[in-house]
Amino acid sequence: MGYSLPIVKMKLVKDIGEQGLLKKLQAFCPTDIIGDDGAILQLNHDRKLVVTTDVLVDQVHFSDRTTSAFDVGWRGAAANLSDLAAMGATPLGITVGLSLPGATPVSWVEELYRGLDSCLSKYQTAIVGGDVTRSEVITVAITALGEVSPGKEIRRHTAQVGDAIAITGYHGLSRAGLELLLHPELAQDLTPAEREILIKAHQQPQPRLDVLPLLHDLEENIRVAGMDSSDGLGDAIAQICHQSKVGAIIDGNSLPIHSCLTKLVVHSQAEEWIFYGGEDFELVLCLPEHIALPLVEKLENGAAIIGKITSDPEIVVNNLQNANLQSLSVLKAGFQHFA
Amino acid sequence: MGYSLPIVKMKLVKDIGEQGLLKKLQAFCPTDIIGDDGAILQLNHDRKLVVTTDVLVDQVHFSDRTTSAFDVGWRGAAANLSDLAAMGATPLGITVGLSLPGATPVSWVEELYRGLDSCLSKYQTAIVGGDVTRSEVITVAITALGEVSPGKEIRRHTAQVGDAIAITGYHGLSRAGLELLLHPELAQDLTPAEREILIKAHQQPQPRLDVLPLLHDLEENIRVAGMDSSDGLGDAIAQICHQSKVGAIIDGNSLPIHSCLTKLVVHSQAEEWIFYGGEDFELVLCLPEHIALPLVEKLENGAAIIGKITSDPEIVVNNLQNANLQSLSVLKAGFQHFA
Repeated sequence: MGYSLPIVKMKLVKDIGEQGLLKKLQAFCPTDIIGDDGAILQLNHDRKLVVTTDVLVDQVHFSDRTTSAFDVGWRGAAANLSDLAAMGATPLGITVGLSLPGATPVSWVEELYRGLDSCLSKYQTAIVGGDVTRSEVITVAITALGEVSPGKEIRRHTAQVGDAIAITGYHGLSRAGLELLLHPELAQDLTPAEREILIKAHQQPQPRLDVLPLLHDLEENIRVAGMDSSDGLGDAIAQICHQSKVGAIIDGNSLPIHSCLTKLVVHSQAEEWIFYGGEDFELVLCLPEHIALPLVEKLENGAAIIGKITSDPEIVVNNLQNANLQSLSVLKAGFQHFA
Repeated sequence: MGYSLPIVKMKLVKDIGEQGLLKKLQAFCPTDIIGDDGAILQLNHDRKLVVTTDVLVDQVHFSDRTTSAFDVGWRGAAANLSDLAAMGATPLGITVGLSLPGATPVSWVEELYRGLDSCLSKYQTAIVGGDVTRSEVITVAITALGEVSPGKEIRRHTAQVGDAIAITGYHGLSRAGLELLLHPELAQDLTPAEREILIKAHQQPQPRLDVLPLLHDLEENIRVAGMDSSDGLGDAIAQICHQSKVGAIIDGNSLPIHSCLTKLVVHSQAEEWIFYGGEDFELVLCLPEHIALPLVEKLENGAAIIGKITSDPEIVVNNLQNANLQSLSVLKAGFQHFA
């Protein structure tokens, strides 16, 4: 007697069609918003609307090699919620414009939505609308909607000379996690728990919406400039300085370096990842020092004041081991997706 | 002496990079929203937010053969504004998530944005945010934001037995325009002006935001169910009946047929395009007859009451020449993008 393995035919999107797929995806949406041309949402009294959009493309922003469908969803939601946090806004929901080949497994799409939904649920928000269509390339276009009270907006152009520059957590961990996924053999000096910290930092980053209530608890109406560090800490500092027409002085000695990072690579490499690694989704905030100090104390976990805003329109970084970074070229750096 | 033609090197997106492209595209956005992680918008007092998303993919929703970059932009904006109109909402702005190959001419992208902007300007709104990224396939993901006063929302599920079914204009013209673009030789019996009417109906459809103030002038708080006819008049009737758990009886004799259409094709073909052509972007509204009558009188230009909502959960169409449509199969029709 013997067994033969059953041939399992994986169900594809083209097998169930647009209507079939929509029906499955509606399970991830609040029931009252289904069935119309759009969703209707209620803002709280006097709040302003904040809108942000991100597009993720297969083989450009993610690949099966390092990112499961669940994680593509989680990261997509996290990146957009992080943009809202960076504006001082709390989320109202996201819309998802999905295009994909008919040969995509239905299970892949469901995992994508499970990832989106898991991240959104953690921050008490949801998918409120979207569109699904055919394409040769999987593309996930997310628009996040949030609300902010007047006076509590965080903008990039309002940093002032003398402001403390605060970061809300460690940097470089996401880049280190990506390296471990591409080269698992590098993990030899790390404990399984340490390996997990870095890989999770890459796969399931946490948008720092938790920072906003702490900030407002400290003082009712403070002027805070800032953005998130999704394109790298260096890029964030450069963007804020550029938009605010100011400069910055950064002290390498006050830059928190996570112990996992120094166990994985030499110090100067860790510094490079901290400035240019990207995708850490921390907030980089410029605010009066008397607010910045209690904020980073409350946050712990790599939160720190790393420098000061100056009137000279340049960014100076002192006390780094990596000589290449001393003359910080971040001002001309930044992603060049088409290069 | 002779001249040689200069070799004109067309500038491509990859030649100017993401930052270069963004700089060009920012010319199409209000200046106060540039430079942050998101846009901040103010809703009018007590209004609700309406959100709708559409994704357009090269070779699926448009092609160089029938649609210029300008028209891709116009149609994308129009489709989204039409969704807002279909919800009873006035526009606050749109976001554009654009992905495209580095080899796309910069002029193509600028024309796309010129098309978006031209349509939006006509309806006093604008591009308020977006993202640009690399992909192998041009994909335009648009999210439109609008606002609606409580009680003025138009939904699909609120049609009631006895409601008049009103359309705000002619149907089938966009489908006829597409046919003329694909087969210009069919235009022989049309004047240039008639040809232009059909082609413009396809290339630059008009979202019916103008219907909303007319509707509210007639009566302050009327219950209106409805949606737009972007996926076809037949599909719209079917969707409304399905969502509202009602049926409909449609009178073919009261269906306005544009004279250009009857000059182009036989009557039964015209009827098919009217029901299944799609992309007409008119509104299909279900409302009490005493409001519907003055509304269609004011609108003219193909606006008409074409039938009534019934309690039988089926759609009956009387007085059509096209026998295939008598047993209207619209309930099981609708787009199947992946089939």
